[in-house]
Amino acid sequence: MRAVTVEPGKPSSARVEDVPDVVAGDGELLVRAVAVGVCGTDKEIVRGEYGWAPARRERLVLGHESLGRVEQAPPDSEFSPGDLVVGVVRRPDPEPCGACARGEWDMCRNGRYTERGIKSLDGFAGQMWTTPEEYAVTVDAALGLAGVLTEPTSVVAKAWEQVDRVGDRAWFSPRTALVTGAGPIGLLAAMIGVQRGLDVHVLDRVTDGVKPELVASLGATYHHDSLAAAARVARPDVVIEATGVGSVAFDAMAETGPYGIVCLTGVSPKGRTIQVDGGALNRELVLENDAVVGSVNANMRHYRAAAVHLAQADVAWLRRLITTTVPLEEFATAFDEDGDDVKVVITFDET
Amino acid sequence: MRAVTVEPGKPSSARVEDVPDVVAGDGELLVRAVAVGVCGTDKEIVRGEYGWAPARRERLVLGHESLGRVEQAPPDSEFSPGDLVVGVVRRPDPEPCGACARGEWDMCRNGRYTERGIKSLDGFAGQMWTTPEEYAVTVDAALGLAGVLTEPTSVVAKAWEQVDRVGDRAWFSPRTALVTGAGPIGLLAAMIGVQRGLDVHVLDRVTDGVKPELVASLGATYHHDSLAAAARVARPDVVIEATGVGSVAFDAMAETGPYGIVCLTGVSPKGRTIQVDGGALNRELVLENDAVVGSVNANMRHYRAAAVHLAQADVAWLRRLITTTVPLEEFATAFDEDGDDVKVVITFDET
Repeated sequence: MRAVTVEPGKPSSARVEDVPDVVAGDGELLVRAVAVGVCGTDKEIVRGEYGWAPARRERLVLGHESLGRVEQAPPDSEFSPGDLVVGVVRRPDPEPCGACARGEWDMCRNGRYTERGIKSLDGFAGQMWTTPEEYAVTVDAALGLAGVLTEPTSVVAKAWEQVDRVGDRAWFSPRTALVTGAGPIGLLAAMIGVQRGLDVHVLDRVTDGVKPELVASLGATYHHDSLAAAARVARPDVVIEATGVGSVAFDAMAETGPYGIVCLTGVSPKGRTIQVDGGALNRELVLENDAVVGSVNANMRHYRAAAVHLAQADVAWLRRLITTTVPLEEFATAFDEDGDDVKVVITFDET
Repeated sequence: MRAVTVEPGKPSSARVEDVPDVVAGDGELLVRAVAVGVCGTDKEIVRGEYGWAPARRERLVLGHESLGRVEQAPPDSEFSPGDLVVGVVRRPDPEPCGACARGEWDMCRNGRYTERGIKSLDGFAGQMWTTPEEYAVTVDAALGLAGVLTEPTSVVAKAWEQVDRVGDRAWFSPRTALVTGAGPIGLLAAMIGVQRGLDVHVLDRVTDGVKPELVASLGATYHHDSLAAAARVARPDVVIEATGVGSVAFDAMAETGPYGIVCLTGVSPKGRTIQVDGGALNRELVLENDAVVGSVNANMRHYRAAAVHLAQADVAWLRRLITTTVPLEEFATAFDEDGDDVKVVITFDET
């Protein structure tokens, strides 16, 4: 079968090639790929800056934002051939830490987890893939290609759960949320915020194109000026930070109201020194009982929540997040940068 | 009666003077003062940098870390004459916010709370004081003068509760804690950490004197080198930051392990700019699912927890935290700075 593979650590080593057909083991689904989404982590891997091949191999099948159709399910499975499914990215180590042992591998403490398409396990960017059925989630058939947004939505569902759980340490009744960054994570975070009935504001740098329009069609308010200016209007109880820019993260901490919660979801490069009034920021965090929580990855609870959020969303709006589709054999163009892209997806010929 | 009063906003206006005797209203305790503790907030008020007098008055009775003996209790009260009691500092506004309405005035959202000895309500630094009995807590008679540590311990009990509640957003089983700063808050935080069975480490700048000794007698480990060096040894799951120094707060965020929690309790002056690798810090908070939570003040739940923690502590150790006692009429010397002081207390003649 054909698959996108890469030699982790080696820049520009990604290619489409023939790899051995996958075979479903006991209790596993055999899935025909529909699409894989491309995100910043894939780009880091393709640039040779991240990623680990499976043991005793040089190359890794790329892809962790999956969507496929069940080809074959085990007997008595809850899945049936034809179901639209998504595979879970992270898997616990056979000798799990306390969190992994409880299914909370997104909170792994010993770092020995593996990740499909990222760390020691082949990803989903092949024509066929397999997964133990307990690491698969059914997505609403009506979503079609938009089902490929399940994995990024799971990351956002976890972020909102973190906000809730941190918020519930005392009385918590948020009304407004500010999302920084109108990429896929920011827009999906805004979507969930609107589904929760919050007054949602989204800040990004661009002044035109698809992002302001996508924010407006959600019923949220778009801002392209400064964080401080956006916060003056939004007066956010919650900030979901999705730019990964350190200075934005720290500015966000200063701009919440009393009992403000900032959830950081963006991963930024090291080595960008910023000037912070550390005294003022510390004072504000203390005197306002503010909280900051980092959030990465997702467990089954978050994938299931993601499937529910997507099923409740406007499919046409979700479909507009996918601004570029690239056929498998032309996968390389999926890694070209286009500032106005939201989500780029590699598609597979289902037939 | 005699009381320490101050004109908020006016430096060096504190004095001991005769003020009208207090009268207990319905449902109120009349209490004879034993002692009041002095903290950084009192010093800010005496320097004219903080504080509000009661409505239509120029002067405020100082003091919020109280200890007294019940002189007179309402009929059918749970308090009896002779009980050692502490009064609660913060009170909700008659038109409470959602948090204050639920007794969580420490999490007040609208800022309309009042505070004994700080904001619009007379404090406890008078020979007699009154309080509604629902804002009083009994402390163990065996504590004697050490009962004056109840209010700072309530602040620390809240901080630990915040750590628990933020930690319980997923599997949480902390083993080690690092406390930065060996002042009263830091030492009481270390004491509670030890009571919880944690491996506790305390960092302060001083190399000799009472602080290293107090840490060692707790069974905790004292560090006086850098935060990074202390963290290398402690590998802290939890950091309680009690210096209020912005750079220490930010360094602490970088030094926790996966799922690390930093609780900020120290209030720092504004205007101290520090250089932070914002990208690296943001990246670490996200990829490790770290959390930072500011914590200030305390509600009844925390005062009651404080009374339990103090009753379980070694009274001799607690008594050593009170490094200086100053009689009421010499109160001014309580505001002299001595680097090796832990807690300075103004004492009242009970007879």
